[in-house]
Amino acid sequence: MPATPLAELGERARTAARRLARATAAEKDEALTRAADLLAERSADVLAANGSDVSRAAESGADEAVLDRLRLDGRRLEQMAEGLRAVAAHPDPVGEVVEGCTRPNGLVVERVRVPLGVVGVIYENRPNVTADAAALCLKAGNAALLRGSGGALASNVAIVALMREGLAKAGLPEDGVVLVEDVSHEAARAFVQLSGVIDCLIPRGGPGLVEMVRAQATVPFVVDGDGNCHIYVDRAADLEMARRIVLNAKLSRPSVCNAAESLVVHTDVAPAFLSSAGRALLDAGVELVGDERARALLPEIGVAGEDDFGAEFLGPKMSVAVVDDLDAAIGHVQRYSSGHSEAIVTEDLRAARRFVREVDAAAVLVNASTRFVDGGELGLGAEVGISTQKLHARGPMGLRELTSVKWVVYGEGQIRT
Amino acid sequence: MPATPLAELGERARTAARRLARATAAEKDEALTRAADLLAERSADVLAANGSDVSRAAESGADEAVLDRLRLDGRRLEQMAEGLRAVAAHPDPVGEVVEGCTRPNGLVVERVRVPLGVVGVIYENRPNVTADAAALCLKAGNAALLRGSGGALASNVAIVALMREGLAKAGLPEDGVVLVEDVSHEAARAFVQLSGVIDCLIPRGGPGLVEMVRAQATVPFVVDGDGNCHIYVDRAADLEMARRIVLNAKLSRPSVCNAAESLVVHTDVAPAFLSSAGRALLDAGVELVGDERARALLPEIGVAGEDDFGAEFLGPKMSVAVVDDLDAAIGHVQRYSSGHSEAIVTEDLRAARRFVREVDAAAVLVNASTRFVDGGELGLGAEVGISTQKLHARGPMGLRELTSVKWVVYGEGQIRT
Repeated sequence: MPATPLAELGERARTAARRLARATAAEKDEALTRAADLLAERSADVLAANGSDVSRAAESGADEAVLDRLRLDGRRLEQMAEGLRAVAAHPDPVGEVVEGCTRPNGLVVERVRVPLGVVGVIYENRPNVTADAAALCLKAGNAALLRGSGGALASNVAIVALMREGLAKAGLPEDGVVLVEDVSHEAARAFVQLSGVIDCLIPRGGPGLVEMVRAQATVPFVVDGDGNCHIYVDRAADLEMARRIVLNAKLSRPSVCNAAESLVVHTDVAPAFLSSAGRALLDAGVELVGDERARALLPEIGVAGEDDFGAEFLGPKMSVAVVDDLDAAIGHVQRYSSGHSEAIVTEDLRAARRFVREVDAAAVLVNASTRFVDGGELGLGAEVGISTQKLHARGPMGLRELTSVKWVVYGEGQIRT
Repeated sequence: MPATPLAELGERARTAARRLARATAAEKDEALTRAADLLAERSADVLAANGSDVSRAAESGADEAVLDRLRLDGRRLEQMAEGLRAVAAHPDPVGEVVEGCTRPNGLVVERVRVPLGVVGVIYENRPNVTADAAALCLKAGNAALLRGSGGALASNVAIVALMREGLAKAGLPEDGVVLVEDVSHEAARAFVQLSGVIDCLIPRGGPGLVEMVRAQATVPFVVDGDGNCHIYVDRAADLEMARRIVLNAKLSRPSVCNAAESLVVHTDVAPAFLSSAGRALLDAGVELVGDERARALLPEIGVAGEDDFGAEFLGPKMSVAVVDDLDAAIGHVQRYSSGHSEAIVTEDLRAARRFVREVDAAAVLVNASTRFVDGGELGLGAEVGISTQKLHARGPMGLRELTSVKWVVYGEGQIRT
């Protein structure tokens, strides 16, 4: 069967988006709930499709980490269905009057939250992104145009089929969720250049994907970027609190973007802190690499190069720098920050305030673990990613970040003089 | 003198942006006021520089419209200075706590308005954009990296010199306003690809510039696009009100993006309306082009082709379509809309509500002239452009649209379980 041309898929999504923009919350929630039901009823179909993806990947020599991200099982399907129901339970962002006023000439001016239209998501292996992203797009009244990877194609086809059936059962257009099945590089490039079709593009994947989007995209996009998250332990830190925060931020889930990757320690407290928390990290299996001053205190750790200080390790490795003062700490963070989440541990109000003001990142934390920077923990509910850019959305992107606004002006014949 | 490399100019702007992000409103306002004073004191310098630009343009055969956009005089310089003072008088958007809450675990979460960083503006001839855009960027705490056209280079250099002097007098870094003097196409392309330097790019110019930005930019941008603005005169319109609105929207300033370009009339009222308002437009010198049904009522008007219905004329020309009902009207508007501003004239609540909900544009107006869609009229104050895209900013972009937000999280040692 020849693949449907990309332009036609885009046109279908656009047409569906016009209907979805007017869908009631009840209709959208029913579509999501029906899809969740279908995920349970037809779990065998999805697991079979996923099995073929996993076998193919295993045959081509994929390592266990890749296979694990790709693999679905009964429990993961249940989580996927729960995710759909959780999105259905969220309040509908569409129609919210963000602000309004009456102008001196009597014009009533409102800004009203409206869907974006067609949200394009281009992503890598994990098939759970298919359901999560589509659900959030739908709830915000958007059509989802999805382009997953070749490795998860069979899984994605199976999941999208259920999402589309859910839409149909709710009386909404199936094309509210459209999967691009052409997994070629050419198709990826064409996808990010669908001007006039995609209102917002969200890349979810590694640096290579983000780089491709930056270089090639002609449609507006929001980058879900790296997290080289720092924790600065100030001279005035409660060292026991700092130890708890650092261990939590590094160890509770090292593979995610809000995990800490870099430790910056004030020289006055470095001996005490590194002999306690540094040791604890090493004992927990974390590979530390440090600058000269850190290595003077922990001689067994490796040398941190420029690359290490700038790296998002996404695993059991962490860089350590010792600094003279708050200026040097802020300088170090600013130099290597990826603009995601940066934390200070201190009891000093002035240091806290300067760090908050001067560090330029999506999230800045005082005396708390960087792991809190996600949509659920900050009160947004589910998230479609964490933006590290400054336009449109910064930090966790929830339903609200999947909308735009429209100015609505009511007059009684006013003209401009 | 060899031109300073673009990368170096960008780095200077970035460094200045870090200081400007912390500048108080008083400092920023002083810089703007000082620059306004300098525009008056040194008007001779600016006018001399502008004179050389105008002579050069005249010698190369530019037409009067181009010369008029380029030309400065005492009055225009005064307006420029007044513009700077008006921006100084605005409240500072930076530091506003957009929202906040305390999470169940005691974390205090706030979203705080912060500057974008470096705002890049690439624009065409008009030198007044130099002062306007730089002032708005500065007030919002950003550095402005400006790339104007070759035709206005001497004027821009002179204006930027005064803005920089104003910054210095206020104790702020001169590099808060940086002009790129290399006006080659290669420099324009390199400008829109300054990833890591430009946080937000705003193109101000014609379709060619916007197309170049869409195709070439690797930095986030907000498009200030065309305005093919429609006015739909419904069956239930007050025809006298409709006439007033159409004449105002078309004639009060035909060369701007919120001027009406397309008239859509319900068939039941078309005979009466076109014989009144249509005639009035013709009498005022507007060239009308229509579909068959419009031409049956106004036989002397030309035939409107596909291109006419899609055109932003920016002058004394207007397309006219006659439609059977509201569905056809919405269909016509949706098909040709540039997503800027669309109006309905009606006394029918249901028609008004459907038009407002179903027409997808930055602004939708009921019984009011499209000319109200600008920052001043909608209560934003000065604007840096009108966005026709849906990400970040939609409609008039004021100071707030030149900011981002930062999540700030205060804890007392919380870790994630």
